[in-house]
Amino acid sequence: MNALLLIAHGSRLIESNNEVRELTKNIINLKNQGFDIIMCCFLELANPSIPEAINELALKEIKNIIIFPYFLASGAHVAEDIPEFVNEAKSRYPEINFEVLTHLGANSKMAAFISETIDS
Amino acid sequence: MNALLLIAHGSRLIESNNEVRELTKNIINLKNQGFDIIMCCFLELANPSIPEAINELALKEIKNIIIFPYFLASGAHVAEDIPEFVNEAKSRYPEINFEVLTHLGANSKMAAFISETIDS
Repeated sequence: MNALLLIAHGSRLIESNNEVRELTKNIINLKNQGFDIIMCCFLELANPSIPEAINELALKEIKNIIIFPYFLASGAHVAEDIPEFVNEAKSRYPEINFEVLTHLGANSKMAAFISETIDS
Repeated sequence: MNALLLIAHGSRLIESNNEVRELTKNIINLKNQGFDIIMCCFLELANPSIPEAINELALKEIKNIIIFPYFLASGAHVAEDIPEFVNEAKSRYPEINFEVLTHLGANSKMAAFISETIDS
């Protein structure tokens, strides 16, 4: 059982968090890429939190959690906060494998994606 | 004279801000999309700030500034802070036209872009 867990920053604005939830639905609708579950969670200001999401996945007997930081730049959240949450989760759930993918902004195709965005 | 001004959040981590600067160079290298200048600036924690960048463009006699919020979700920064900076700039530089594009995360192709990112 594999899960993809998208981690977003979270906002005080409900609409902003709903954007992330909608995006997650769109990813699910595209194809499941071998994941049994695809869900999102938030670093702060919204639910589920990272520990809540990981707990939910653990209860569903997920064995591999692939974490995708939905962040543009490798600031303190990506470089420090997310690894800290993951390390805590590894201690709590030693039976689960965790893998953290590089954050969205590190994608080498981002410049082309933006260029297309601006053109359209 | 047209300019594209990419606005990023900004971070305490120099590497994070340099990621945005590198991305901006990559956009410039792709094609200039009819822009005479393409540059980036930061909402907070890094330079140039939004007012500094707009002032620099004004000194270069740019007539149209297209602003691209390099943000994933429409939180307070996109919904409130950036419009506030733009309104101030409009008062200060009435001879310049400002246009704010929708933020990156609103791109309908984002789900597919993430799906490809995770696959690769």
